[in-house]
Amino acid sequence: MQPSSDSGNFAPAAAQAEFWQRYVEDFRKAGHEAVDWIAKYLSELSDCPVVPSMKPGGLVDALPASGPVQGESFDAILADFNRLIMPAVTQWNHPRFFAYFACTGSTPAILGEMLAAALNTNGLHWKTSPAVAELEQVTLGWLRQWMGLADDWFGIIYDTASTSSMHAIACAREMATPEARVNGSHPNLTLYTSAQSHSSIEKGAIAVGMGQANVRKVPVDAEFRMRAGALAALVEQDVAAGLRPCCVVATVGTTSTTSIDPVPQIAAIAEKHNMWLHVDAAYAGPAAIVPEHRYIFDGVERAHSLVVNPHKWLLTPIDLSAFYTRRPDILRRAFSLVPEYLHPQQDPRAHDLMDYGVPLGHRFRALKLWYVLRYFGQEGIQQMLRSHIAMAKKFAALVDSGPEFERVAPVPLSVVCFRYKGTDDENKAIIESVNATGRVFLSHTMLNGQVVIRLAIGNLATTWEDVMEVWTLVKDAVKSKISNFKF
Amino acid sequence: MQPSSDSGNFAPAAAQAEFWQRYVEDFRKAGHEAVDWIAKYLSELSDCPVVPSMKPGGLVDALPASGPVQGESFDAILADFNRLIMPAVTQWNHPRFFAYFACTGSTPAILGEMLAAALNTNGLHWKTSPAVAELEQVTLGWLRQWMGLADDWFGIIYDTASTSSMHAIACAREMATPEARVNGSHPNLTLYTSAQSHSSIEKGAIAVGMGQANVRKVPVDAEFRMRAGALAALVEQDVAAGLRPCCVVATVGTTSTTSIDPVPQIAAIAEKHNMWLHVDAAYAGPAAIVPEHRYIFDGVERAHSLVVNPHKWLLTPIDLSAFYTRRPDILRRAFSLVPEYLHPQQDPRAHDLMDYGVPLGHRFRALKLWYVLRYFGQEGIQQMLRSHIAMAKKFAALVDSGPEFERVAPVPLSVVCFRYKGTDDENKAIIESVNATGRVFLSHTMLNGQVVIRLAIGNLATTWEDVMEVWTLVKDAVKSKISNFKF
Repeated sequence: MQPSSDSGNFAPAAAQAEFWQRYVEDFRKAGHEAVDWIAKYLSELSDCPVVPSMKPGGLVDALPASGPVQGESFDAILADFNRLIMPAVTQWNHPRFFAYFACTGSTPAILGEMLAAALNTNGLHWKTSPAVAELEQVTLGWLRQWMGLADDWFGIIYDTASTSSMHAIACAREMATPEARVNGSHPNLTLYTSAQSHSSIEKGAIAVGMGQANVRKVPVDAEFRMRAGALAALVEQDVAAGLRPCCVVATVGTTSTTSIDPVPQIAAIAEKHNMWLHVDAAYAGPAAIVPEHRYIFDGVERAHSLVVNPHKWLLTPIDLSAFYTRRPDILRRAFSLVPEYLHPQQDPRAHDLMDYGVPLGHRFRALKLWYVLRYFGQEGIQQMLRSHIAMAKKFAALVDSGPEFERVAPVPLSVVCFRYKGTDDENKAIIESVNATGRVFLSHTMLNGQVVIRLAIGNLATTWEDVMEVWTLVKDAVKSKISNFKF
Repeated sequence: MQPSSDSGNFAPAAAQAEFWQRYVEDFRKAGHEAVDWIAKYLSELSDCPVVPSMKPGGLVDALPASGPVQGESFDAILADFNRLIMPAVTQWNHPRFFAYFACTGSTPAILGEMLAAALNTNGLHWKTSPAVAELEQVTLGWLRQWMGLADDWFGIIYDTASTSSMHAIACAREMATPEARVNGSHPNLTLYTSAQSHSSIEKGAIAVGMGQANVRKVPVDAEFRMRAGALAALVEQDVAAGLRPCCVVATVGTTSTTSIDPVPQIAAIAEKHNMWLHVDAAYAGPAAIVPEHRYIFDGVERAHSLVVNPHKWLLTPIDLSAFYTRRPDILRRAFSLVPEYLHPQQDPRAHDLMDYGVPLGHRFRALKLWYVLRYFGQEGIQQMLRSHIAMAKKFAALVDSGPEFERVAPVPLSVVCFRYKGTDDENKAIIESVNATGRVFLSHTMLNGQVVIRLAIGNLATTWEDVMEVWTLVKDAVKSKISNFKF
């Protein structure tokens, strides 16, 4: 498809109108086909391999080395999508995707993304699209209420939890050393997080110029939770050494085991030393919507910031990370830098989102979240979360019931960490062998120096039969193949 | 819609299958409606107001204060979308959106976003979705070739140019002070950019802990281009003062006037002092695809990094910022931090995208770019760019032809800066009055201390008639209303 204009000139209105009509009808046809493609995909996905079998470079080699000189038809593009791209896709939306944190690209969110792409509106500034700033405020308000947090939390959407946490760390720097904005980061600021916290915390500290050497990895207890006593000791030690502790990052639902740091005790230490407390609940946050699991947020009301990723366990496709802070004044002070062509709004109800972070452009991500929250409702979301947690506990009981496997961590939420009572190489071989079937996708982690198998439940379509398939495959791998493992 | 599972338990396979079938059919119906909605929207958009007329808080007040307890139907959601949200949307996809940088959410990109949301695949790591890493490499390679750059450029997609430039600045820090990663930013690093460069450069320097005071705003010449002599003098002065110049950011297509910094001269200075040279071509980059405008990239081959935003002038909806660097080794050194559960790939063709930036999660943004490049082809894209540039030049000639207005900057690309030969307040009133018609949307900038009207052409649907409407409205505002302006 080519616009009806030629070199250095432009077409008359009639030609433009004709081009536009063809262009829209072309979309209508391809759009309906895409909807049917997605419906078929969602219906048949359970039968597809979860992970592709291809060699690095396979897709690069299969595609032309140069882009097309002339435009191509939607039919040709979709055909190549099916033939070349699909076999290279790892199916994160698959009911038997149990690796990392399982997630869901739900149908209401797909509709929200379609509409957002068509509008292509950009809420960098309130007036550049009031709908973006205001729907973001509304949807993050709904989610905040469901998670049982008070209305002194300001919410903003970033792309990923890594970005959210980097902003939290920048806030910590701003609170401790307001002069850093002008003069640069001070080399004696220190940050504390558990040895089980996500790597993005360390990366955030590096990015903002705090330095990896100033990140303290606080030891954890036997259940992989930050030891508050060890935190206090490390902070006191750094203060005595003339350093300036400025930030603690507690994790509610760690990546390896979903362990939950003792936020109330950590908050007390943060308060004593006037440190910014950031809570990383990127995965686990949605569980706070379920009354019997709300306890995971005990003490969070004392934190300065919190990240929850709807693109993990809240039915929203990547990317949508919800960042909340009780100190939007500090976030704004750290990042506001209004250029002349974007005068600040004077109205206190008109938030200019560009003032609250690194990215200037602000996509209409709130629309997909609004679709999700409305379509499923609080009860629908609670049902899904309860179902995932119940399946994880039932799987844990299976692991506990026999002599061949051991469970390596408690199962407070929807992830089970277990291992075959054998060598690390045997456990790695089990994962490889199980994943090679294409039926399921498991990932591993290291705990207490040992290779551990992780089962993460989080997809809307996942049934108990899907989970049982893991158990069967794992047991089969042990029973029939253990002697043939290639180490 | 609610999953077929109840409190603390989960449904049998048959109930799940039934739920899933209803869920998919529900999507199919709503998806077809959404496609027709988008087709209608694109057909009728030209008749809609470009900017909404609403008061801050209007949408917040119109929506429920709490999210729904029970799920709602797609019909109910779409009805509220039409009734409440659409009137709050600034129509960035409108043919008469001439503010900031005009852009296009094109139809192939909408299809790409639909499919990406449905797959919900995440390319943080090569093996977590080979298609993401490889299609990103392929599409950025095509775009690189079209812009006439050699194959020593590594490309990666981030969300916005602000994020891309922040990564460039972090690379500059890494190259100058490799110890910064561990020990934190050194307070004597300095960065240079023109007084006309985008605010995101200053923000990036603040974010990485370099400090606002270490950002030098190099003066510009009469055509708003960085003065290379002034740059050299500032650098020498800082070196003499014991500071460490580490980064120069040149702009190819500044935000106010699309002026083009003299990259070859700037590159020579950067090379002399071993500084990282980043080129911000977020808006203008695509023009390099057109042979007669390729000159804007003269000297870019000597830069260390470059940002081009397909979500500005390349038919791609927000967000998609293409970041290129000839030193991916330094980018990786600055940001790689591989946690245990994500072992590095050994294969040199398997890039783990998480190693090249702050965000860990990596959305399948390349899919929409692939759709765009294939559907329009190089020639289609060239035609659009030529048409926009030709219309801008023709509008500039209109401005030049009469006595009432003056053009304030050259028009190398698709933006015209002009002003009524009156006071700043009169020019502001003209913009307000013209925008209040809802027919067009113009923004302003400040040049040489004066308020300037900006006309930015960049939407695929824009015709000469659309541009002429601006001219008519602006002249009408001056002719018939100048005496009634409320200052």
